[in-house]
Amino acid sequence: MHVIKVGGSAGNDYAALCDDLAARHAAGEGFVLVHGGSDETNKLGEAVGHPPRFVTSPSGYTSRYTDRRTLELFMMAAGGLVNKRLVELLQARGCNAVGLSGLDGRLLEGKRKATIRVVEDGRQKLLRDDWTGTIERVNTGLLRALLEAGYLPVVAPLACSEAGEALNVDGDRAAAAIAAAIGAHTLLLLSNVPGLLRSFPDEASLIGRIPRGEIEAYLSFAEGRMKKKVLGAQEALAAGVGRVILGDARRAGCISAALAGAGTVIE
Amino acid sequence: MHVIKVGGSAGNDYAALCDDLAARHAAGEGFVLVHGGSDETNKLGEAVGHPPRFVTSPSGYTSRYTDRRTLELFMMAAGGLVNKRLVELLQARGCNAVGLSGLDGRLLEGKRKATIRVVEDGRQKLLRDDWTGTIERVNTGLLRALLEAGYLPVVAPLACSEAGEALNVDGDRAAAAIAAAIGAHTLLLLSNVPGLLRSFPDEASLIGRIPRGEIEAYLSFAEGRMKKKVLGAQEALAAGVGRVILGDARRAGCISAALAGAGTVIE
Repeated sequence: MHVIKVGGSAGNDYAALCDDLAARHAAGEGFVLVHGGSDETNKLGEAVGHPPRFVTSPSGYTSRYTDRRTLELFMMAAGGLVNKRLVELLQARGCNAVGLSGLDGRLLEGKRKATIRVVEDGRQKLLRDDWTGTIERVNTGLLRALLEAGYLPVVAPLACSEAGEALNVDGDRAAAAIAAAIGAHTLLLLSNVPGLLRSFPDEASLIGRIPRGEIEAYLSFAEGRMKKKVLGAQEALAAGVGRVILGDARRAGCISAALAGAGTVIE
Repeated sequence: MHVIKVGGSAGNDYAALCDDLAARHAAGEGFVLVHGGSDETNKLGEAVGHPPRFVTSPSGYTSRYTDRRTLELFMMAAGGLVNKRLVELLQARGCNAVGLSGLDGRLLEGKRKATIRVVEDGRQKLLRDDWTGTIERVNTGLLRALLEAGYLPVVAPLACSEAGEALNVDGDRAAAAIAAAIGAHTLLLLSNVPGLLRSFPDEASLIGRIPRGEIEAYLSFAEGRMKKKVLGAQEALAAGVGRVILGDARRAGCISAALAGAGTVIE
């Protein structure tokens, strides 16, 4: 069983990814596909006059400030557009995919951070009305039932708070949590770079392998969104996932290539 | 087992509907909730500069012309926003809802009408690049598995073509097809009118009961969207559903009221 996260950045080839995924699924391998929605949410926000606002935490992580309107744009872009496009691509390839989000059946339960601390212009401040959260529990019953019935679950990164509220959660960490909860052999984090780069954006500086005990030392190479991927990798390995591979979603056969060791392999 | 369809028109009270639905679900009744997405798709289309275009068939039915861009707006509005809002309202009331669309797991299989015949300015013409369809089969396995595990399925009116394409389908007829396929006792079609009106929009002219053999004679009272509800009712009854009730989604306790006979009861 493998869990794959694919981002929505420019260059990622969903059709090629689904070719590869459908073929491997038909051959009997089990997968859960987790996706993002950040880029489509940005586009939609711009189009409807509610552009994105990104904030940086005191520890240096960048995330989307998600007011209620942004949460609803995220439901549309991630829960609607990206999720159903991927399901459609898989169905067109004969793969019986089921799209859902972490809100559905409380698949991903999280803790809402209604107030977040951010750094702007070098000063810390508090932002309220935030609808993001961190995942605290994965309810595997629904996923297992779908997997056992032969479906391929496609999961949008929303979670359900204790109070039943929808939350925007990070897709890489959602994939890591799911991989850990279902005891996946491999977690593949695919994006529009070949893996972790020693000198971003020089693709020739790809780090091919990281021993699991040394992740901390490599965190400093992670730029932007790659930080959360490395963090997700660390969480997944700590929770028992066999290996994590940071791979390239821009090339045909990206899943097979990554499973064969292309990219940054952490194990 | 009851199947409920609720539209998204002005005045419909989703929070009140979910109060009633969650309470009855907690008491042990089985439900499938089907929703629309037409109004939110219109709003989104206006906001992003791709406004809706409605067309009328030679037989007098009005529907949305769904080019690819409109299909993707529909995925966002119906598959994303409306679906996840309803799941969130139910989760906040302790009801373990699972949102999905008819595309997922090929729950609703349909036939694409890539070219549609419409009447404009009194003349028939053909429109191409249409992504609507009619439902031909309901795959009940996924629904039954969810129902047996105690979940409340919330279904967006998308279907899957034979070729795996996503299709925009009519929500009322989707609900009718699901009700027939799972052998529902009742199909409730809730909207922002009290039921079928003899003199639309005079709400005092509510038709309280229609004997099942006489639906045809009442079709002439159905205005606009009500036509498809009556058509859906006819299809559901012909396929073995016990009764169909056209009820009012604007009032608190709308499900309980309709199940108790408020609205237009066809049986």
